[in-house]
Amino acid sequence: MLPSLRWEEPPEGPVVVLLDQTRLPAEEVELVCTDVPALVRAIQTLAVRGAPLLGLAGAYGVALAAVRGYDVDEAAGLLAGARPTAVNLAYGVRRAAGAYRVALEKGEDREGAARAALAEARDLHREDAEASALMAGHGLALLDELLPGGGHRILTHCNTGALVSGGEGTAFAVALEAHRAGRLRRLWVDETRPLLQGARLTAYEAARSGMAYTLLTDNAAGSLFAAGEVDAVLIGADRIAADGSVANKIGSYPLAVLARYHHVPFIVVAPVTTIDPRTPDGASIEVEQRPGQEVTELTAAPQVVASGVGPGAGGGLPVAPLGTQAYNPAFDVTPPELVTAIVTELGVVSPVTGAGIAELCARSRQVTIS
Amino acid sequence: MLPSLRWEEPPEGPVVVLLDQTRLPAEEVELVCTDVPALVRAIQTLAVRGAPLLGLAGAYGVALAAVRGYDVDEAAGLLAGARPTAVNLAYGVRRAAGAYRVALEKGEDREGAARAALAEARDLHREDAEASALMAGHGLALLDELLPGGGHRILTHCNTGALVSGGEGTAFAVALEAHRAGRLRRLWVDETRPLLQGARLTAYEAARSGMAYTLLTDNAAGSLFAAGEVDAVLIGADRIAADGSVANKIGSYPLAVLARYHHVPFIVVAPVTTIDPRTPDGASIEVEQRPGQEVTELTAAPQVVASGVGPGAGGGLPVAPLGTQAYNPAFDVTPPELVTAIVTELGVVSPVTGAGIAELCARSRQVTIS
Repeated sequence: MLPSLRWEEPPEGPVVVLLDQTRLPAEEVELVCTDVPALVRAIQTLAVRGAPLLGLAGAYGVALAAVRGYDVDEAAGLLAGARPTAVNLAYGVRRAAGAYRVALEKGEDREGAARAALAEARDLHREDAEASALMAGHGLALLDELLPGGGHRILTHCNTGALVSGGEGTAFAVALEAHRAGRLRRLWVDETRPLLQGARLTAYEAARSGMAYTLLTDNAAGSLFAAGEVDAVLIGADRIAADGSVANKIGSYPLAVLARYHHVPFIVVAPVTTIDPRTPDGASIEVEQRPGQEVTELTAAPQVVASGVGPGAGGGLPVAPLGTQAYNPAFDVTPPELVTAIVTELGVVSPVTGAGIAELCARSRQVTIS
Repeated sequence: MLPSLRWEEPPEGPVVVLLDQTRLPAEEVELVCTDVPALVRAIQTLAVRGAPLLGLAGAYGVALAAVRGYDVDEAAGLLAGARPTAVNLAYGVRRAAGAYRVALEKGEDREGAARAALAEARDLHREDAEASALMAGHGLALLDELLPGGGHRILTHCNTGALVSGGEGTAFAVALEAHRAGRLRRLWVDETRPLLQGARLTAYEAARSGMAYTLLTDNAAGSLFAAGEVDAVLIGADRIAADGSVANKIGSYPLAVLARYHHVPFIVVAPVTTIDPRTPDGASIEVEQRPGQEVTELTAAPQVVASGVGPGAGGGLPVAPLGTQAYNPAFDVTPPELVTAIVTELGVVSPVTGAGIAELCARSRQVTIS
């Protein structure tokens, strides 16, 4: 599989190369960004997406500006503002721009500072890959413990693999680890309406990895549970509150309720950076409402709905009557009592309680300090 | 709103006029069928669909052949075989063809027998409309009893209105009754993947009726339950087993589990003909597996996927990688313990038990005999 994002240094000068996610799964096309405006366009058109991967795009973007001798502050501003709600994007920008500034303050010339920014982007990339690998290991150990029979049949939702990460992702990385260990019997892939990240991206990653996978509409998961065909649910997280409430892609919470009703483990896999100690509980998480056109119109590449190209108001083919109002929250919140375990790179929290989360955060700070 | 199906007698001879459901909601186009082959094509392309409505199409089709002087047995065979799994279609054909035969046996000429076939089709039509009206009344009374506060917020799935019925339908008819009584606060309409009957047809019917409705992806229902925004779930049924297990459109069972978890009534609305006493329980219901292309491809008029027109193998735009296998059951089975009540034209069964179902069936036979 082509990497989602890489830094290259051809003779004409350094570039950031992206796998264009709007063209998947039909075509594998790489976008070569020679400057920051090109990278900003790629972020805005969702050619590159997924929280950790956006962080890398931000960091490498700053390094690109620095190495090519552009104004680094201006580049950082453009990148951080490309998608204002993406916290990781701003974080990646801050990391690389900070390294650049510190190097200058230490007396490095602009070339040396540019090297420092690139080194910081590469550090972030490596940290991300390491976190994926650690989560995959912890996650598989947990699966083996919960399901000693082996031959795991895992249900997942949305897209949590290499397309969102500098490594192999979060929940998907655990399934991939099980696959490599010969212990994945089947990956059930929710299509994940409205943007179909499961059908378009997770199915693509599963196919490329040679996993035994089956796609289903989100509403068909219930039948699989009832038939005893699901051994565990593995999902990622957009944000985890201090009490262990998990905000994730819309459709995660109904899976948690189904899992509980059928006595199936419901496991969240996410790096510790996903935990937000300043959000006390699930009720404090503000849920983003997305445009109704994502529901009332269909498009073959749903992620480009936002670009407004096409016959409908949102760029797609209308399926509902004109003027239909849609309820389209981007994610939902699963309370801690429905989460069997949270798997992070620093270990597993189970049962999921505020105290467990706090302990993990303390360990995370120790790691950062040491 | 144009009627889904009507009999007309213009000077050129009688016709069956159908509202072409494959063109909804974008266009309201009527199909005029002057002979049985045209009607068979309309059934096969799903221009007319929905169990009770197919029964009417079958009955009027036999009447059309009889009145126009065609071979009635041949017409009955063509119609009954147009969609082999549609039980109601064969039932409607049998009713009209039986009336024709009985009239001939009684010494009527072919013209008189044709009149008898048409009268039988009209009887079936009237029975269907009466059953809808009775279900709507019983259903609203039940809602008012369960939810004395009024201002009902009802979640529904798939399409159960006038487009599937000679009357105003089943679950949708109850919501419409509540709307007319000023007691419907909101109708939450599940889009109903993969064929989007909710988005395309229920939203259309709700809009035409002036109801306050909101469309959502099936996986967003969980958030509505969690927020306390759903007072009751109302769905139809494809088949009800002797123990009260309910087979209905895929996605119904997860709603039943969510409803139970959130202490919300889950109500099934269906005519007594939907009860199949020869199917002892849910496990005995064979679930139809539909083509994977309904999930792996998108089409603006999903019901014509089966016709194979378009770029993908199934006629739509591919969204998943080529070769992706899909799990695509047409319906799921909800066990009786998750069903708060079954509303029929003969009254309400609650709690839902085998004894309650048997009693209803006995009452149904009394009505038939009397």
